[in-house]
Amino acid sequence: MSGANSFGRSFCVTTFGESHGPAIGCVIDGCPPGVPIAPEDFRADLDRRATGRSRHTSQRREADEVEILSGVYQGLSTGTPIALLIRNTDARSKDYGEIAERFRPGHADYTYWHKYGIRDPRGGGRASARETTLRVAAAVLAKKLLTQRGIRVQGWLSGLGPYAPARIVRDAVERNPLFWPDPEQLPELEAFLDGLRKSGDSIGARLTVIAEGVPVGLGEPVYGKLDAEIAAALMSINAVKAVEIGDGADVCGQRGSEHRDELTRAGFLSNHAGGILGGISTGQAIIAHAAIKPTCSILVPGRTLDVHGNEVEIVTKGRHDPCVGIRAVPIVEAMLALVLVDHLLRHRAQCADVPPQQPLVPADPFLP
Amino acid sequence: MSGANSFGRSFCVTTFGESHGPAIGCVIDGCPPGVPIAPEDFRADLDRRATGRSRHTSQRREADEVEILSGVYQGLSTGTPIALLIRNTDARSKDYGEIAERFRPGHADYTYWHKYGIRDPRGGGRASARETTLRVAAAVLAKKLLTQRGIRVQGWLSGLGPYAPARIVRDAVERNPLFWPDPEQLPELEAFLDGLRKSGDSIGARLTVIAEGVPVGLGEPVYGKLDAEIAAALMSINAVKAVEIGDGADVCGQRGSEHRDELTRAGFLSNHAGGILGGISTGQAIIAHAAIKPTCSILVPGRTLDVHGNEVEIVTKGRHDPCVGIRAVPIVEAMLALVLVDHLLRHRAQCADVPPQQPLVPADPFLP
Amino acid sequence: MSGANSFGRSFCVTTFGESHGPAIGCVIDGCPPGVPIAPEDFRADLDRRATGRSRHTSQRREADEVEILSGVYQGLSTGTPIALLIRNTDARSKDYGEIAERFRPGHADYTYWHKYGIRDPRGGGRASARETTLRVAAAVLAKKLLTQRGIRVQGWLSGLGPYAPARIVRDAVERNPLFWPDPEQLPELEAFLDGLRKSGDSIGARLTVIAEGVPVGLGEPVYGKLDAEIAAALMSINAVKAVEIGDGADVCGQRGSEHRDELTRAGFLSNHAGGILGGISTGQAIIAHAAIKPTCSILVPGRTLDVHGNEVEIVTKGRHDPCVGIRAVPIVEAMLALVLVDHLLRHRAQCADVPPQQPLVPADPFLP
Amino acid sequence: MSGANSFGRSFCVTTFGESHGPAIGCVIDGCPPGVPIAPEDFRADLDRRATGRSRHTSQRREADEVEILSGVYQGLSTGTPIALLIRNTDARSKDYGEIAERFRPGHADYTYWHKYGIRDPRGGGRASARETTLRVAAAVLAKKLLTQRGIRVQGWLSGLGPYAPARIVRDAVERNPLFWPDPEQLPELEAFLDGLRKSGDSIGARLTVIAEGVPVGLGEPVYGKLDAEIAAALMSINAVKAVEIGDGADVCGQRGSEHRDELTRAGFLSNHAGGILGGISTGQAIIAHAAIKPTCSILVPGRTLDVHGNEVEIVTKGRHDPCVGIRAVPIVEAMLALVLVDHLLRHRAQCADVPPQQPLVPADPFLP
Repeated sequence: MSGANSFGRSFCVTTFGESHGPAIGCVIDGCPPGVPIAPEDFRADLDRRATGRSRHTSQRREADEVEILSGVYQGLSTGTPIALLIRNTDARSKDYGEIAERFRPGHADYTYWHKYGIRDPRGGGRASARETTLRVAAAVLAKKLLTQRGIRVQGWLSGLGPYAPARIVRDAVERNPLFWPDPEQLPELEAFLDGLRKSGDSIGARLTVIAEGVPVGLGEPVYGKLDAEIAAALMSINAVKAVEIGDGADVCGQRGSEHRDELTRAGFLSNHAGGILGGISTGQAIIAHAAIKPTCSILVPGRTLDVHGNEVEIVTKGRHDPCVGIRAVPIVEAMLALVLVDHLLRHRAQCADVPPQQPLVPADPFLP
Repeated sequence: MSGANSFGRSFCVTTFGESHGPAIGCVIDGCPPGVPIAPEDFRADLDRRATGRSRHTSQRREADEVEILSGVYQGLSTGTPIALLIRNTDARSKDYGEIAERFRPGHADYTYWHKYGIRDPRGGGRASARETTLRVAAAVLAKKLLTQRGIRVQGWLSGLGPYAPARIVRDAVERNPLFWPDPEQLPELEAFLDGLRKSGDSIGARLTVIAEGVPVGLGEPVYGKLDAEIAAALMSINAVKAVEIGDGADVCGQRGSEHRDELTRAGFLSNHAGGILGGISTGQAIIAHAAIKPTCSILVPGRTLDVHGNEVEIVTKGRHDPCVGIRAVPIVEAMLALVLVDHLLRHRAQCADVPPQQPLVPADPFLP
Repeated sequence: MSGANSFGRSFCVTTFGESHGPAIGCVIDGCPPGVPIAPEDFRADLDRRATGRSRHTSQRREADEVEILSGVYQGLSTGTPIALLIRNTDARSKDYGEIAERFRPGHADYTYWHKYGIRDPRGGGRASARETTLRVAAAVLAKKLLTQRGIRVQGWLSGLGPYAPARIVRDAVERNPLFWPDPEQLPELEAFLDGLRKSGDSIGARLTVIAEGVPVGLGEPVYGKLDAEIAAALMSINAVKAVEIGDGADVCGQRGSEHRDELTRAGFLSNHAGGILGGISTGQAIIAHAAIKPTCSILVPGRTLDVHGNEVEIVTKGRHDPCVGIRAVPIVEAMLALVLVDHLLRHRAQCADVPPQQPLVPADPFLP
Repeated sequence: MSGANSFGRSFCVTTFGESHGPAIGCVIDGCPPGVPIAPEDFRADLDRRATGRSRHTSQRREADEVEILSGVYQGLSTGTPIALLIRNTDARSKDYGEIAERFRPGHADYTYWHKYGIRDPRGGGRASARETTLRVAAAVLAKKLLTQRGIRVQGWLSGLGPYAPARIVRDAVERNPLFWPDPEQLPELEAFLDGLRKSGDSIGARLTVIAEGVPVGLGEPVYGKLDAEIAAALMSINAVKAVEIGDGADVCGQRGSEHRDELTRAGFLSNHAGGILGGISTGQAIIAHAAIKPTCSILVPGRTLDVHGNEVEIVTKGRHDPCVGIRAVPIVEAMLALVLVDHLLRHRAQCADVPPQQPLVPADPFLP
């Protein structure tokens, strides 16, 4: 059966925890047995997601030490639920005292208050992006399973305010703190972010995530379509307001003769579809994009109400990111990885007996 | 438990059927008892979705007579599963004979073939948009439940190839076969579509769907977020490649001071969020958009392979829509209605005891 | 996601329909592709379950013609939902007119009325055992999949009122209308049933169902245990009041040294466990039992209330079985088959990579 | 969505942890907001379940200190997932060294080994009854919600080897370490258990659990029947081999005129049904029974195999209960409480608008 804080059907992740509670954690149910896993395996991706890595992200510093509570014996997954725990160590709740009684515009304060009649205001409680730490941690296992099968997931920033990369240099992405694929633009971007921070404001972003090596055949019609579940996965990330697959919103302006990806013996001639047709993977690169709103925790004063209904001014002083999209790169990777692993397992549940056929050579993911 | 062809947790719809099989149908499980329902209630929305209404849609004509097989007694829902059945009456399979052995580019032919090792090629089989008929039918019940609670769902076309409405005249939407909200643009659009049809090509579209009167508090953190489920719901519709909530992809270029919807005693001052914060409804209008690709069933010859691996030319002769987005208007409405009803029931499961609080006056949905 | 009228996680069956509505049916979602299936395949098991086969069952005669509505192409399952439909042809609602306003003791009339505020009284509506027809139909597919893997499911009557079989002659089960495994007792049993019918009364029964050839390893800890799901499956059958696995209720009186099934190189030495340890199959025969209550639709007058709260006498005249347990044999087989197929698919989702090990020789299922 | 280690649809509990791993825990998703909860609330029921309370249970002593990790703010549930953690403090893995390579007969060792290809042998790993600690902890919340609604759950031992209570003195149950309802039999029972312990053997048991004050209308046809889910809930408890509702297995010998519970204005005249008809509660006491096998961890030598396939003798020396059924009393209560709370929430999801009707006066639960 199920709860709203669980994700995935065969590889099922349940997360729990509030930003400033004692701990955050997750339970992974359905992981295949025999996967090697150690606490240090989480370090790299959690560091990529962590705050405090550069002056462009929140200065909150969490150790993010992962404790493996169950499901692993002698370094291998056993097939039983794997629980991961991270203690909250740098939770300065005093920073948030002022906003306990005020609804921050653009935040979940107002909606949680009305839905539940009670809310944990410390650091955004359950609605904080801190929850996504566990998505990244759970996806470390997912990525291991994908890597074993030759599938690689990579994300980067493909928009930041008015900027878009002039070119995609994939090797450059991990070599700068902005996960930006065009290294020549970095000085300009950093100056832009510095100015933004000085003005106490924030900016939106766009992210791209791709998966290469995905076999043809993942995804299930009609509500379990691969793209439908990727859409839910990415839209469930804090602040995401749009999800696109392949050419995404641009398809509105395209003709059928232009959009269709023709097939030849040499392979597909293009990848407008983003690697998914009819909700099922084509064998080409899966390509998805997400737009992420600017954080509304800013120093620019704004109008709001308090819990008693009074009009008040609000300034959010905590330690916030001027662009939450930057740190979202490992999160979009995590969600895509989780969807893919889940579908790999679901596919073999139903179709393990289908004789594999020779798939076409995939087009380069950057073909138009 | 669950299958991939089911949607919704408390108000759960399962659809079945292929485009040219004997019938299509659905089972609605979890509908509250006492809802009046009769076969003629489905007529209006099915007609809005039907082919053959104007020269701009496919000329296939289906009677789409809904038979209620169960769950209704003396005109009222009883709380048990409601099964709806529609016979396929105009299934000219001979039209599709030529493509049985060829993978239409941009279609699910290739992916179904690889996933299952077998496919029903007649009219696209399960991957045909004919499946969406039942989504619209199931949503007739959902809309009844919403209407009882003062919630109204409305969709329209907000993009067609290079065109976007200059203004939104909501009353005009239902008075033209294109569901276009700006009546002055209609002659130009019709001429564009006529030209397209003559050229044997097709075009993409953008749709907008809103829900007004939604109470604050619908949606569940963190994977059951209202926007995450709307994203899955819309992305699961055939040909949809992008889903946006509120300002959607535009948030990339916004600042926090610009995006946040400020609160005053007079209500929210804007609705950039599209009525959802932290995955939970704010009481403002829910606003969502979907981009739909041009159909790839076109007369313009294209390159493809046949099932034996030979390179062949393909021309898709059937009776196809030059712009499948037009008929998708009732479908996006249906999916939004299904998500909302499901969350209404889920909300009262967990939170029926929470004393209701006075929500803010919602902003006009068209405020920036 | 899911509804209460769905069963199974990977091989998911949803049923719908009332006893005297237009039709009953089911949707099977997740069936592997390539399974041969034709309308006549349902005949044998539906006949075994049907009324009117002997003087010991209800004289209602349903043709029970199965129409395959979807998911099958050229005689093979395609991997998409398979919908099966059976029209209700012999629904004499007039028989039930008298009870529309009276709550039959021992029936669901009273509980449906209170839960939903409305009920379909014709023939018991949704609560009628007619619903189980579709379980049997769905299990025809399940049994095909099991047979392909060398798994055989067989059920029989192991108790009828005061009688228990003196010996188990498995070949005899299908050669008598009572599914009774001890042919020498048949004359006595038939006389007992004749007497019962004359007195207008009914009697309870006990059923046993076993599965042989089940591989070691099916079942998932801890709520998806194989025995937990078999328990739910059997208890969900109308009138079942007890479910036992292996030695069942007798384990209360056993010692550990007596109950444990010892292992030797020649195999297990006994099968008290009924083929399941820790919720996972051992490779021995799965053995389950169900106790089924006497139908309360009898001619013996009883006290009850009508819907207005008046005390009234009730006599249920319809066409009822003196022992509903007899026809339940194919139903318990069906439910066990559905659970096993579901777990076969779930097992390969998670554990397809586990190298198979040599299982022990199973003990004869009838060892103590 | 869902995993096999989750239970419940609206009030969803996921457990994790192995007997001798670092910790065991659970996540409760869907708990209504505003429920008071503190670490000390778990004490009473965990003590009832704990080992080491009398000489008749295992001498392992666990502190079982519950840490609340999330979902609670200022002492009240917030509606977000509630995670509970218990560290394993008395895990003497050396006790289990000998059995790491031997399959204990009657245990899950053999089945886990074959299913997963790997197992955590320390104390039975995931298959240990230690997992049930969290079921009891989660049910502390469930019981609070039930108590608020006037529903009381109580369990007791109703069989121990050859003994059955001569009478049910409910007040006596909590006043003896055996949860035995007939205080006069205690000396005899204790002598029996002492003899059993000396002989190094173990014995089975039978448990009864009832719920009083349950409103009419809980439960959903046809696979979500209240009794079907109770059956799964109880059968999922370690060592349970039979589940009975109301008269249970005895219905085989009953006539319809005897079994049916007649209705009068003074109420039901009996409760053979155990408070459930057609899968929906009648308003009478819910009555369920479970049979629990004797533990197979005994000192009496037995035959088995080691992981290399050699025949070996096994003696299980650890600290085991001669009758695991005794400590199972709070566990059967927990599972019944979890099912009832889940159905309370599910019922109001679908049927909150049904006007409540006056239910009948329930019969005394001990009427025949």
